[in-house]
Amino acid sequence: MKLKLTSIAGSVVAPRGFLSAGVFCDIKRLGTGKGSNKGSKRDLALIVSEVPATVAGLFTTNQICAAPVKVCMERVKGGTAQAIVVNSGNANACTGKRGMEDALEMAAIAAAELHMPVRQVLVASTGRIGVAMPMNQVREGIVMASGRLGGAVDHADEAAEAIMTSDTRPKTVAVELRLGGKVVCIGGMCKGAGMIQPGMSLSGKRPAAMPSGLHATMLCFITTDAAIQPGALRIALREAVAKSFNRITVDGDMSTNDTVLVLANGLAGNAPITDRVARGVKAGEAAEGSAEFLGFVQALEHVCLELAKKIVRDGEGVHRVVTVRVSGAKSQRQADAAARAIANSPLVKTSWHGGDPNWGRIIDALGYSAATVVEEKVDIGYSASEGRRVLWSLKRGQPTKVPFAALCKAVAPTEFDLHANLNLGDGSAVMYAADLTEEYVDFNKGDVTDPKTLGG
Amino acid sequence: MKLKLTSIAGSVVAPRGFLSAGVFCDIKRLGTGKGSNKGSKRDLALIVSEVPATVAGLFTTNQICAAPVKVCMERVKGGTAQAIVVNSGNANACTGKRGMEDALEMAAIAAAELHMPVRQVLVASTGRIGVAMPMNQVREGIVMASGRLGGAVDHADEAAEAIMTSDTRPKTVAVELRLGGKVVCIGGMCKGAGMIQPGMSLSGKRPAAMPSGLHATMLCFITTDAAIQPGALRIALREAVAKSFNRITVDGDMSTNDTVLVLANGLAGNAPITDRVARGVKAGEAAEGSAEFLGFVQALEHVCLELAKKIVRDGEGVHRVVTVRVSGAKSQRQADAAARAIANSPLVKTSWHGGDPNWGRIIDALGYSAATVVEEKVDIGYSASEGRRVLWSLKRGQPTKVPFAALCKAVAPTEFDLHANLNLGDGSAVMYAADLTEEYVDFNKGDVTDPKTLGG
Repeated sequence: MKLKLTSIAGSVVAPRGFLSAGVFCDIKRLGTGKGSNKGSKRDLALIVSEVPATVAGLFTTNQICAAPVKVCMERVKGGTAQAIVVNSGNANACTGKRGMEDALEMAAIAAAELHMPVRQVLVASTGRIGVAMPMNQVREGIVMASGRLGGAVDHADEAAEAIMTSDTRPKTVAVELRLGGKVVCIGGMCKGAGMIQPGMSLSGKRPAAMPSGLHATMLCFITTDAAIQPGALRIALREAVAKSFNRITVDGDMSTNDTVLVLANGLAGNAPITDRVARGVKAGEAAEGSAEFLGFVQALEHVCLELAKKIVRDGEGVHRVVTVRVSGAKSQRQADAAARAIANSPLVKTSWHGGDPNWGRIIDALGYSAATVVEEKVDIGYSASEGRRVLWSLKRGQPTKVPFAALCKAVAPTEFDLHANLNLGDGSAVMYAADLTEEYVDFNKGDVTDPKTLGG
Repeated sequence: MKLKLTSIAGSVVAPRGFLSAGVFCDIKRLGTGKGSNKGSKRDLALIVSEVPATVAGLFTTNQICAAPVKVCMERVKGGTAQAIVVNSGNANACTGKRGMEDALEMAAIAAAELHMPVRQVLVASTGRIGVAMPMNQVREGIVMASGRLGGAVDHADEAAEAIMTSDTRPKTVAVELRLGGKVVCIGGMCKGAGMIQPGMSLSGKRPAAMPSGLHATMLCFITTDAAIQPGALRIALREAVAKSFNRITVDGDMSTNDTVLVLANGLAGNAPITDRVARGVKAGEAAEGSAEFLGFVQALEHVCLELAKKIVRDGEGVHRVVTVRVSGAKSQRQADAAARAIANSPLVKTSWHGGDPNWGRIIDALGYSAATVVEEKVDIGYSASEGRRVLWSLKRGQPTKVPFAALCKAVAPTEFDLHANLNLGDGSAVMYAADLTEEYVDFNKGDVTDPKTLGG
């Protein structure tokens, strides 16, 4: 099924009945004793639905997980939510009992301001690890943001700015599609930059085939006016994240705070997508409503993948983005392991930075991955994008006659596809990966004379 | 048992009856069309015992493994060898059938020059991947080296220089000890620099608890005049490598060529250490000869660890070397996973480079490792070296009152120890790790205008 998606403006406020705001409340100041950051970028955002919405969430599988993540994991189980309060500048991770109290209080303050039950409010944080939340600033911020809520593009842009940390630009998307005769919108915003190799699951428990390793945290907030039941929304989100956020890596570090939340408020007026239909589709059964569910999943996937790619492109110090396509592995799991080995090898990543079509490092990474690899069967090549002609540098383990200059040209663009066919089976996997640059190192080595850059 | 080891000069020629040589034969020239490197550093070495020696070897567990590695794996099974021919500048990896013929021919040429059976000659290579060996140069080099063989310190230094690739200095060591009333010597040389996280085993098959991921190859050649049977030598080498080369990481990439070979020619005249005694010691039984075996293992471990640390210190772009000591894990395997997660995290490694005592990134890496971690139990601290006072930055998941400036001072030296106690069990593990610097990236991104820097 080919779905017609139209890009529109407005990100999280594009769907009917959503409001947002972003404010500056100086969250970073506390704990550094370095004076105020007045005039700095916004650091607190609110996303609010005018009516209670169906909710689903996916969270970091890191065993060390931040207080707001624990709060969300619990609350999304209820299946409904109406608001999300998010701050940057402080991750509220490794903050103990006090951290949990602060996360709950953030939600409580927002609930009071917004006149809704506290359990309808979700909370997310990103920034330094191990520093207590400056609750006076946060309280002031939430009050300010509540007073600024609106449904214009500017309101969405404020919110997208407020969740940035080392991101150099806000990351937003919104699409429109027709579902059962109704126009449905899905909007989203996210942040990333470093500590990026998410491995998210519904419960925070790591599935067997998860990456073993994400850090600056990725946060993503998606809104839609589709009518969909909670179980169906969970299935849709898991599918979409498996093919997007869980397929990206900047540095292979997995954060304590990774969170994807989606709110679906039903105001589009489509016939609700039911849990029963979603489970049926998962089990391979077609029924009335299947097409609508599949259409919704496809649109959600599109939104997640657009946002995920923006995270890789804006990763710390990133110059080149490479789509690693492994095929011919003995299984999907082996394909995943092979793609991650390539995508996280420092030597492969530095060769991308150097514009070096170095197949030796790629086959080396394949060889130490958990995937079965037979030297005499491996093909390695490059293309400009999916579906374009592949220029093979290695065929069946042997260098081809393609001139070195032609291979250099293939890896010169800021984005290209790398193909590795193991020729052993049907397993395939894709990873969206970043190169490793001097800027990444320089940015992350921090500045010990400025503790604000350290500790998280 | 405290063993008295005396450092001596001479590395691989320190033990009785060993000769070596290193020559320049211009191995890198071919394939680049860039003219001769005459006057460049030596690139071919020979190590020869005057009498047949007991041999043991450990090899990369990378599934893509170079032709010389395959030749050695097969030949060490015989239990004796008398010579090793080594080249730098070309890894003879991913070179197919021709590569295997070239590796066998290198050994055959050396055997003819040295007048010994061809199966007594081992071969090792390091350098570019995927380029055919320039056999005319190699042949000339082996003939030259055979004519220069000698037992003086200079001969050992030549050989140590000849195996260097991106190493900035030769790496050698030699010690003397008393074993059963006789003076025994163990000498060694090695090379490393990048693609360094060895996971070596006797057969090249990966044991369950091996790192999943090494590259510029590490090669190590050890000579001793101890009398020891092949099975005992294998057990000793496996023990020594498990505590040294398999505990280091520069970049987490595992090479196609990693090789450790040890030749023991028995000329010290000690009562031979038997396989039976070694197996007995492994099974926890003390018997006559146990003390000698244990003494030999301890000395071999010392030699391997000194060489392994030199590899980390001279790793590509390395500024700081950190000994990661994990304790209190639920098992040894979990401790190993936790130590490798810390040692290979780009964010932890860049913080070391920046002199940043960033416990947030360390606990984050612990959290995504395969080890069980409970936030409220984790201690993280620093000491100047083993046995010195530990300055704790985190105790039971809570930041301590140790001032930030004191922690910065603890991570300012070029070498320090990092302690992570999970407080969950008895498992402990040590990793010798390097920081991640702009120089590493700059070096490895290569220079596409000079193909000699590329492709391996």
